[in-house]
Amino acid sequence: MFDKKLKLNKVGEYRLLDYITRYCLKKRHLLYPTIVKIGDDAAVVKIKNFYLVFTTDLFIEDIHFKKKWSKSVGGINRLFFYLANKTLAANISDLSAMGTVKPLYCLIGLGLPSNLKIENIKSFYNGLENFCKKYNIEIIGGDTNLSSKIFISITLIGIAYSKKNIVLRKNAKIGDKIYITGCTGDAAKGVEILNNKFKNVNSKIKNWFIKKFFFPEVKLEQSQKISKYANSMIDCSDGLVNSINIICKQSNVGAKIYLDKVPVSDNLKKFNNYLDYVLYGGEDYELIFTSNCNLKNIIPDIFEIGEIVQKNKKIKLFFYNDEIKIKNRLLFDHFKS
Amino acid sequence: MFDKKLKLNKVGEYRLLDYITRYCLKKRHLLYPTIVKIGDDAAVVKIKNFYLVFTTDLFIEDIHFKKKWSKSVGGINRLFFYLANKTLAANISDLSAMGTVKPLYCLIGLGLPSNLKIENIKSFYNGLENFCKKYNIEIIGGDTNLSSKIFISITLIGIAYSKKNIVLRKNAKIGDKIYITGCTGDAAKGVEILNNKFKNVNSKIKNWFIKKFFFPEVKLEQSQKISKYANSMIDCSDGLVNSINIICKQSNVGAKIYLDKVPVSDNLKKFNNYLDYVLYGGEDYELIFTSNCNLKNIIPDIFEIGEIVQKNKKIKLFFYNDEIKIKNRLLFDHFKS
Repeated sequence: MFDKKLKLNKVGEYRLLDYITRYCLKKRHLLYPTIVKIGDDAAVVKIKNFYLVFTTDLFIEDIHFKKKWSKSVGGINRLFFYLANKTLAANISDLSAMGTVKPLYCLIGLGLPSNLKIENIKSFYNGLENFCKKYNIEIIGGDTNLSSKIFISITLIGIAYSKKNIVLRKNAKIGDKIYITGCTGDAAKGVEILNNKFKNVNSKIKNWFIKKFFFPEVKLEQSQKISKYANSMIDCSDGLVNSINIICKQSNVGAKIYLDKVPVSDNLKKFNNYLDYVLYGGEDYELIFTSNCNLKNIIPDIFEIGEIVQKNKKIKLFFYNDEIKIKNRLLFDHFKS
Repeated sequence: MFDKKLKLNKVGEYRLLDYITRYCLKKRHLLYPTIVKIGDDAAVVKIKNFYLVFTTDLFIEDIHFKKKWSKSVGGINRLFFYLANKTLAANISDLSAMGTVKPLYCLIGLGLPSNLKIENIKSFYNGLENFCKKYNIEIIGGDTNLSSKIFISITLIGIAYSKKNIVLRKNAKIGDKIYITGCTGDAAKGVEILNNKFKNVNSKIKNWFIKKFFFPEVKLEQSQKISKYANSMIDCSDGLVNSINIICKQSNVGAKIYLDKVPVSDNLKKFNNYLDYVLYGGEDYELIFTSNCNLKNIIPDIFEIGEIVQKNKKIKLFFYNDEIKIKNRLLFDHFKS
């Protein structure tokens, strides 16, 4: 327990989450029990003979995005279109990280400044509709209100037909191999480019990174195959090391990560310090999972990047045979200042 | 259709909602069809042989509440406790307004400034838990993030067992009586007191109004009886006239409201212009419903306040026999400046 007078920026997101979790322990519905609560990518409840999966994601102006990014994407309308895609992608990635889940409905909460134009909202809803069509999601409701800063709060609801195909964070086993479905770090680089940090990079490459941030490929379909074999799974939206850390903490295990096996995009490799992005950058939506099966020839497009070890061996990073120190200050935390 | 360059403050909430609704018309799930979508108090979907009801409400700093209200309620921790109650009450009122719905789960989205103290969050969760215990709701998930202003986004999920007991806004019939479950205007007066507008009012009465705002009595149980007889129903959170207006618009009818029959609290009656609060004040959670039955002796604690008439007779207010003009400028709209 920590001092109640502590401010959030000293507590950090994960400790806050531990704190909040205590309020959510009570089970109140014997008929419709919760199978998974706060602490995983999404919540799961059992209703009759199937499972409903719920996730909520917030996207907030000046925290997750800036209005001035309009310039880099071709105008404010396009930014709204992009934001719609990004927020829904974050939500659907949470469902994917739970295993074989079919998305059904979403609710859209919007806080909007009164001086926004109706065409901005139209672009936002065009973006939602574009995404929803692709993944067969129905927008069923929401709330819209005034707010000095734009914020987007999306709740996505999916359905699963078998508990067997729901994969939690907490069941990684010693000896499991750690897999990832694709490259990390590109979205974080995209954010820096949107913030105008790399003026000398050519615009084709800039746009490639920006698209990686706004239009990540979500692994909903691939997750159906993965969930047949995985002991544990998480999406890497909080960064690769952070995400593996969460799996380890919840599963009470340690991990070795082999950096030379971690996939990196050709564009990101062009930057000197690319490994910092790969290991600590957030906002990518690849799946990280562990399994005791050798899946290389069973599931295409996955990369084996490490293995689960005993808890007392902690998380260790290796580059070929050299151990690399984890840069704790780079670990993604929404609340740390 | 309106000019896309129009700003939100010129468009208004209801026209914006009409606009958004078009994006939500597509039905995508034949197996799990949506029965009610955007435009009612909550969304309803059919899954197998029962109905799930979803609602989302936003509560935003400097729009719905102010940090400086702490002084009037006994400190910032207490304000957080109160806010938790208020936001969940708004959500449960939305479920009540759909008929016989049993609340099950909620998801909590929170935007928080980094300088908040952990004890504030604790108070907020104590407030949530206090309310959830009373109505048997489980907190199953959410998202917490940094934000310069505090905002709260709650999604509440309930279950209904019969379509018969789901009551929509759009089915008011000519000849229906209009009923309300209690007094309106007190919450709006409470907000003005919180904003320090009535320095001469004694503190006991001040606290009474403040409690009316933060701890409204929600009519979840009463709604079970009402839903057996009602043709249409809405909660009055946007104000009495506004809410009846929405029923009329969606049902394609008009209404007569008899102001001398509308219930008013003794405390509110002490103010000269109390009728303005009763008719146009928002944030109360009474139910307004219409029925062709005489319910006075069947359902306790309801007030017959008017009747549904033909559309071309519009909404008209009467005080005894005199017609009173509707003050359009007082009609509640989150977006109008």
